[in-house]
Amino acid sequence: MRMYDIIAKKRDGGELTYDELEFFVKGTLGAVPDYQLTALLMAICIRGMTERETSDLTLLMANSGDVMDLSKIEGATVDKHSTGGVGDKTTLIAGPIAAACGVKVAKMSGRALGHTGGTIDKLESIPGFRTSLDNSEFFDIVNRVGICVVGQTANLAPADKKLYSLRDVTATVESIPLIASSVMSKKLAAGSSGILLDVKVGSGAFMKTREAAVALAEQMVAIGKTAGRRTAALITNMDIPLGRAIGNSLEVIEAVETLSGKGPKDITDLCLELAANMLYLSLPEHITLTECRRRTSEALDSGAALKKLEEMAAAQGGDISCLKDTSKFPAAAETGEYTAASEGYITSIDAEGCGIAASLLGAGREKAGEPIDHAAGIVLLKKPGEYVKRGEPLAMLYASDQIKLVQGLARLDKCYNISAIKPSLPELIIASV
Amino acid sequence: MRMYDIIAKKRDGGELTYDELEFFVKGTLGAVPDYQLTALLMAICIRGMTERETSDLTLLMANSGDVMDLSKIEGATVDKHSTGGVGDKTTLIAGPIAAACGVKVAKMSGRALGHTGGTIDKLESIPGFRTSLDNSEFFDIVNRVGICVVGQTANLAPADKKLYSLRDVTATVESIPLIASSVMSKKLAAGSSGILLDVKVGSGAFMKTREAAVALAEQMVAIGKTAGRRTAALITNMDIPLGRAIGNSLEVIEAVETLSGKGPKDITDLCLELAANMLYLSLPEHITLTECRRRTSEALDSGAALKKLEEMAAAQGGDISCLKDTSKFPAAAETGEYTAASEGYITSIDAEGCGIAASLLGAGREKAGEPIDHAAGIVLLKKPGEYVKRGEPLAMLYASDQIKLVQGLARLDKCYNISAIKPSLPELIIASV
Repeated sequence: MRMYDIIAKKRDGGELTYDELEFFVKGTLGAVPDYQLTALLMAICIRGMTERETSDLTLLMANSGDVMDLSKIEGATVDKHSTGGVGDKTTLIAGPIAAACGVKVAKMSGRALGHTGGTIDKLESIPGFRTSLDNSEFFDIVNRVGICVVGQTANLAPADKKLYSLRDVTATVESIPLIASSVMSKKLAAGSSGILLDVKVGSGAFMKTREAAVALAEQMVAIGKTAGRRTAALITNMDIPLGRAIGNSLEVIEAVETLSGKGPKDITDLCLELAANMLYLSLPEHITLTECRRRTSEALDSGAALKKLEEMAAAQGGDISCLKDTSKFPAAAETGEYTAASEGYITSIDAEGCGIAASLLGAGREKAGEPIDHAAGIVLLKKPGEYVKRGEPLAMLYASDQIKLVQGLARLDKCYNISAIKPSLPELIIASV
Repeated sequence: MRMYDIIAKKRDGGELTYDELEFFVKGTLGAVPDYQLTALLMAICIRGMTERETSDLTLLMANSGDVMDLSKIEGATVDKHSTGGVGDKTTLIAGPIAAACGVKVAKMSGRALGHTGGTIDKLESIPGFRTSLDNSEFFDIVNRVGICVVGQTANLAPADKKLYSLRDVTATVESIPLIASSVMSKKLAAGSSGILLDVKVGSGAFMKTREAAVALAEQMVAIGKTAGRRTAALITNMDIPLGRAIGNSLEVIEAVETLSGKGPKDITDLCLELAANMLYLSLPEHITLTECRRRTSEALDSGAALKKLEEMAAAQGGDISCLKDTSKFPAAAETGEYTAASEGYITSIDAEGCGIAASLLGAGREKAGEPIDHAAGIVLLKKPGEYVKRGEPLAMLYASDQIKLVQGLARLDKCYNISAIKPSLPELIIASV
């Protein structure tokens, strides 16, 4: 078998066999040079892949490295994955709610990169919080507490890691089969028996249209089911940032407020729906989603979910006094106010732009491995649909110095649209698959 | 400007600007990594390029290295290029005919690779023949004799060289705009004021259909004219090998026979038409192609063209006693006869297969730089349309040892088709552009 022939076949729109995909995936780990991998990736990006090809590619990438064995965890494990958003702290909220209802959440999460945040960085803003645990401690905490969130220390889906790094620099990220196989290869390797996908759609997401988001969700759910996992997806809006906080400790604080029943409506509603779906995927099928929603609402209202977050933080070495009194989080040295330049309704806030602004303030990083400022970020005081007067504060910005503050303010200034006409706001939860 | 954005634009079918193509072509010489180059090449291969993009790319590649200045040559220079065939010794015949009519042929040629031969290897089969000359000697011979053929010693179109090496291993050779720009970038850099293209079509050529060949010819002629060169193209058949000889000294011998008026009809007709078109491109436009045909026929019939080949060989250090008595060429150690397995009409001879068989006999090379056996090759005794009896000799094979002979015979055996029904033979010269 020759890589040349595999590339030529896909260039002409052919369907690759399992053996051809296996040759390609094995080749990513050394035998096939990058310039052949990227030629094939571009051909796939333009010509597409069938459902069978996508499923085969996913399983081959999932099995290209370590595959987590969660058999030492008692009960049904459910993972949750978001396709990336700004201000998305749902893992910190939906995870504890689901765990409080009995779901076992054994989760590996990523770090901030570019304009998107990372759950691991957010958790590390809690002083003392450890995200690098060995498997026995990881399993022990999940069994004891119900939830544990760690960094991706295992050699998970290295073929995907290699291909993603090439796609990232060759304009071949935007391909539904490639996105689906990339996400699902990591989820399959991570080992949970249930997988809930939160597919973002809108100006701040990879998927710009409902149709594209549904297509991606359907492909991912099909892959998960083919691999024998209970899988479901919600399609949710990402035209504007989720909640009000963007930045690491700022988002943890918002998570605590939400778990205390005092969070913004959008993030509360979304997290309850995510948690209900996670619970649904963990229970026998005769238990309805309606019943799951009842149980997750109760876990939030009773304070059981907040208690679960505190238990997890304590088990992972975090200083939970910060969670009990969020004013104890280390504060940013500099704060700035962003005010309205005109009067009217806020019609939109560009989510991606807010992510970039937060990153400029110090909350993100351009390259993997760079340090991060846990206290930096943005709190949106006004969101679309609200009426504001000229000079009224729209957002608070937090940074370690004035230069970053000025850069963040300048970028945020491009994100707001204000108009005399009241906007109609999109639904947050658009569809489910 | 970022390579990423250029790739994304072409991925989505966009038209690249001159500046974007310049960034790409300059990047081939170091700044842009191979994996980005091949992603763009695949996107171009699938999405295509406009005539403007193709023309810009060609000129940028032509100017990426040395550009030959032929101003020291007196008279109109005309170059000829074939898109690659088997048994194609037309440069050795049409070149001297055109030169005998006053055309200045200052030609750089290539070496054999894979199943295709190379004019430089063929000429080097003449003992003593030098193909590596400095420019002053090259110009001097062209001025004095009218024709000189040398190897590509100058740094011609290095961007094309780089891209071709990547296309060759990423299944992105088969793209009309990329083939057109690759051929024409080298022809433009080689400096002749007239360019005649011989575009091969058929089972033994890159272009499998007449439509594809015409499209390629039209693109190349348009590029040449845009660059201010008089440019024309013939579309010629390459279903079967040209003439009867395949191999280096074997083809020189056939060239001498043809220039002596005793060559096969196909190669004689084609070379006269090529030479007439070369002459036409060198003369004021009011002189008709019919008049050019009359002059080239006369140059062949009078022996002036054969004398021109001998003059060129002498000027380049070759032992012309071999040309005056071709039995003096060093002979192959082993010869073998390939005979008909059945009775009937020969309906086809696979040109590419014959090229591979000749290469196995020692006449070609798999990788650049490998040695070559000048005496090895094949002489086809029977060609399509001829009736043969079982056991009748179809071809003579020449090699340095028995092992190569057996390999060549086995490969040649797959090339012949014999049938009871007399085939209709295709026209050799199919169209002109």
